[in-house]
Amino acid sequence: MTLRIAEIFGPTIQGEGALIGEPTVFVRTGGCDYRCSWCDSLHAVDSAHRHDWHPMSAEAVWDEVERLSGGTPLTVSLSGGNPAIQDFTQVMALGQSKGYRFACETQGSIAKPWFGALETLVLSPKPPSSGETVDWADFEDCIAATGAKTQVVMKIVIFDANDYDWARAAAGRYPDLPLYLQPGNPDVDPDLPIKTQDSLDRMLWLVEKVTSDGWFTPRILPQLHVLLWGNKRGV
Amino acid sequence: MTLRIAEIFGPTIQGEGALIGEPTVFVRTGGCDYRCSWCDSLHAVDSAHRHDWHPMSAEAVWDEVERLSGGTPLTVSLSGGNPAIQDFTQVMALGQSKGYRFACETQGSIAKPWFGALETLVLSPKPPSSGETVDWADFEDCIAATGAKTQVVMKIVIFDANDYDWARAAAGRYPDLPLYLQPGNPDVDPDLPIKTQDSLDRMLWLVEKVTSDGWFTPRILPQLHVLLWGNKRGV
Repeated sequence: MTLRIAEIFGPTIQGEGALIGEPTVFVRTGGCDYRCSWCDSLHAVDSAHRHDWHPMSAEAVWDEVERLSGGTPLTVSLSGGNPAIQDFTQVMALGQSKGYRFACETQGSIAKPWFGALETLVLSPKPPSSGETVDWADFEDCIAATGAKTQVVMKIVIFDANDYDWARAAAGRYPDLPLYLQPGNPDVDPDLPIKTQDSLDRMLWLVEKVTSDGWFTPRILPQLHVLLWGNKRGV
Repeated sequence: MTLRIAEIFGPTIQGEGALIGEPTVFVRTGGCDYRCSWCDSLHAVDSAHRHDWHPMSAEAVWDEVERLSGGTPLTVSLSGGNPAIQDFTQVMALGQSKGYRFACETQGSIAKPWFGALETLVLSPKPPSSGETVDWADFEDCIAATGAKTQVVMKIVIFDANDYDWARAAAGRYPDLPLYLQPGNPDVDPDLPIKTQDSLDRMLWLVEKVTSDGWFTPRILPQLHVLLWGNKRGV
């Protein structure tokens, strides 16, 4: 079985969501069933880039993770693109037998049996500004596919007040899922420096909105990797 | 019983450590048994500022937290100074009866029975650059004082390579405590703007050090509130 891999990099730290700050090796898959208007990972999404994706066996993926981490167990994040398009059963079995932990980041549009073996499943339903529409039945299939030990969390990117209202409604559907909000990043060109203060200002806007509304259940976090490294790849 | 309170403010988000991003009201107490060389809260530590501290009853502290949060339960962080000098039994009982959660941030030099009722105890043993010396027996008394439901975590501020080596040894003593590392902030004057890039550079240094050493157990986080608000008080 061959996996389509856009890039494998790390160890670095997870820059967002529930595992923010956690030392992580990222396995970024190629291919996605969504085309979010503000996608920051088009090199792993748009099939125009497919010639840059590497066909790799599960063993080859695992060998690379092990090499990058020097054989010391850590968290491996399966991201994309949408990693749920592909089958990570074997990669996870190889890693977990050596004490590695696995997190998967997906929009929640496709459920896979291997979700059951994940330590963490981050579901990121896409708000209206993405141009995509969430199918909540598919989303619930993803939750149902997780195992007893899987920590399931929801992360929503917020670009504007409309996204914010949508996130509140989504949170209302799933009151038991820990929720992480993060401000959207419209500066996604890897060749341009990010505007740090603009990025911090979007975070300030979101903090102000949530706290002034007295909505105290979500945690609000920035994209720390964007503050640290801009849109540079491989960190 | 009267509490010495330096400030009560929020709701804002927790800027560091295990609860980073969490909507929080802060109760900052006055007085501290330590004098860290790089203290960023001297207004709550140095007794030269004691005339700015407010003598408040537990009811008055609680009323102010409830007013600021509009009566909607959230996390209340007891910080300082060293909040463990004082008795928060009554404040916590008032808040927890209404669904509020309590976190306490302390160096771990003084244990109190009310630690047993905390949801989160953040122990921040101070590294050599602080000029203080940790008494590990006292530190362990703090852990022993927590309850079955208390999440206990360790947070260590790192200013230099010596602090870093010390943190690795401290982590070795307590392998079961989740560990958070954060780069130290030498720019603590509330009247001066912070140098954002310097702050990010210190974070990059620490990430590079941890990942290149293959030390994958700690999470590495910045002081997010400093990036967002500088050293401004009350946010």
